[in-house]
Amino acid sequence: MADLTETTPGWLAPEELESARARMPVLYVDAVPVRVDDRGEVTHVGLLLRIGPDGAVSRALVSGRVLHHERVRDALLRHLEKDLGPVALPRVPASPQPFTIAEYFPTHGITPYHDPRQHAVSLAYVVPVAGDCRPRQDALDFVWFTPQEAASAVVQQEMPGGHGHLLKQALAHVGYVAS
Amino acid sequence: MADLTETTPGWLAPEELESARARMPVLYVDAVPVRVDDRGEVTHVGLLLRIGPDGAVSRALVSGRVLHHERVRDALLRHLEKDLGPVALPRVPASPQPFTIAEYFPTHGITPYHDPRQHAVSLAYVVPVAGDCRPRQDALDFVWFTPQEAASAVVQQEMPGGHGHLLKQALAHVGYVAS
Amino acid sequence: MADLTETTPGWLAPEELESARARMPVLYVDAVPVRVDDRGEVTHVGLLLRIGPDGAVSRALVSGRVLHHERVRDALLRHLEKDLGPVALPRVPASPQPFTIAEYFPTHGITPYHDPRQHAVSLAYVVPVAGDCRPRQDALDFVWFTPQEAASAVVQQEMPGGHGHLLKQALAHVGYVAS
Amino acid sequence: MADLTETTPGWLAPEELESARARMPVLYVDAVPVRVDDRGEVTHVGLLLRIGPDGAVSRALVSGRVLHHERVRDALLRHLEKDLGPVALPRVPASPQPFTIAEYFPTHGITPYHDPRQHAVSLAYVVPVAGDCRPRQDALDFVWFTPQEAASAVVQQEMPGGHGHLLKQALAHVGYVAS
Repeated sequence: MADLTETTPGWLAPEELESARARMPVLYVDAVPVRVDDRGEVTHVGLLLRIGPDGAVSRALVSGRVLHHERVRDALLRHLEKDLGPVALPRVPASPQPFTIAEYFPTHGITPYHDPRQHAVSLAYVVPVAGDCRPRQDALDFVWFTPQEAASAVVQQEMPGGHGHLLKQALAHVGYVAS
Repeated sequence: MADLTETTPGWLAPEELESARARMPVLYVDAVPVRVDDRGEVTHVGLLLRIGPDGAVSRALVSGRVLHHERVRDALLRHLEKDLGPVALPRVPASPQPFTIAEYFPTHGITPYHDPRQHAVSLAYVVPVAGDCRPRQDALDFVWFTPQEAASAVVQQEMPGGHGHLLKQALAHVGYVAS
Repeated sequence: MADLTETTPGWLAPEELESARARMPVLYVDAVPVRVDDRGEVTHVGLLLRIGPDGAVSRALVSGRVLHHERVRDALLRHLEKDLGPVALPRVPASPQPFTIAEYFPTHGITPYHDPRQHAVSLAYVVPVAGDCRPRQDALDFVWFTPQEAASAVVQQEMPGGHGHLLKQALAHVGYVAS
Repeated sequence: MADLTETTPGWLAPEELESARARMPVLYVDAVPVRVDDRGEVTHVGLLLRIGPDGAVSRALVSGRVLHHERVRDALLRHLEKDLGPVALPRVPASPQPFTIAEYFPTHGITPYHDPRQHAVSLAYVVPVAGDCRPRQDALDFVWFTPQEAASAVVQQEMPGGHGHLLKQALAHVGYVAS
């Protein structure tokens, strides 16, 4: 769950963000980018390849904070564009109902989700993406996997913080379950 | 809920359909065609203008039977193409989870849904439509309404059998409620 | 959306809450208390009768903040017990998926939801309540309405901030739509 | 997916059921019985132990046909009582929205769901069960498993026809994913 410290007026300064994170849950969105065929069936799932602050290589969903006075669907679009580039053509769902919520705790073991920096609650959406995806920001690459590959142990172990778990929940929601 | 008696081998002959309809619930799909903006927010709802067997003018959602050995998403696509034409470019949702189910009974008053011909249970989906819609078959016209217009008393009273009710449920699902 | 300023260590002091509210969206839960019959069908909706800081009488859903390091389902239980008393026996849903999210803005007109104090994003759940409800805290009374009564103009106009809207979305989700 | 041939007037005679099954999809309900704690969190999943027509031992969800002129929630209650006995106290969800639909085909490989007898489309619900469960009918036993046990390879391989898959989808819906 990467997010930059935005510097636009009205947003949180780094030390304020730090302080708020210690006091109240931070609202996030998680997007699972997918390719769908003409019938709407998911054929691929897209994952970001990242290098974390500790140098560890990992794969991640598109994820980030909802800002003050920002609509949830605008936050989704902003993070999708930030991570996938300006011509990814994401199709944010018509309904605001997330397929699940993910509760990230700084303490391990409360839920499958973990974020050492903060208590974050994320609204999770499956987002079909129709255009070209070009990773930006801190991502090295963006790779499409079949649902089978995405649910495999190899990919799952590269997804820390519970993102592998959330990916499997998204796959179950669209009708795919790893055997 | 119009459907033609299909004549492909393996499908029901008219008298068989009649017989089956009297004995078990018939599986349907209902699609609420919508226009969405770049953020995925619904801006318009599309309704078919129909003349019923009794000559009455009415507005309807896209609706029809699921055939033997047909996937639900294929039934959705088939009825959308049948009613909106071949270049409507419907985006059937990635998840098979309907936003609700509508239980149509031949008897009035059991549910808000009524179909004099049969007991039908319909899986209902909101389907963004990106292309040109040209009504075919038995529809006279296909008209886009704003959510406010679609939920208005004028339009609602033109939607028999509970389709006005189902439309309002769809609007509530995407965040719009008539005041 | 009432909430007390909790004084447990680690929670926000009043001035800190004020500051955080001005900088980031605050995570809320909204619960729609319902009575269901043996078949699970909603027969009644429960609403709190409140007197606001300005003396205005209003009806409200159960609503409140999610605290730092608190699970969403614990926040739901805490606010339900706070508002309905200790023997209400609420049945928090097994799935964390809310039926919708409500985005409350301090500015009017962005969404149907409004909260003059803050930008709050609320996860909304329908919660069957099996026991006795005794309003506590700042509520004068807690009254059960039929779905028809709850969706009526009389009750709707007593529900400020978009709670009437959210109630109608909840009713649509459980299959009821006002005609 | 067991169902008896009911003999009440208006229902299908065995040969008619056979005929209808060859011509149109049959509407089913699948219920995943769960135990929940006071916070609504799923602690156990209940599975029927069955001996199939071929003598094979298997575990199954509660499953069966929706009858002509029967409400979906009544079909759920009827099959839950038939399989779990009269004092199971199932809490059928307030919303008719299933967490997914399962499309059972007589042909293997179209979906993860398979029923050699017919094309069936099932509405799937998670149903908290509060009372005592006493298997009736053709079930030998009814056993509660933790989510971890239920998702294990041992239990999964005892669930034919895709019920293991559907169980995992239900677990994902309530926030549990097998690692």
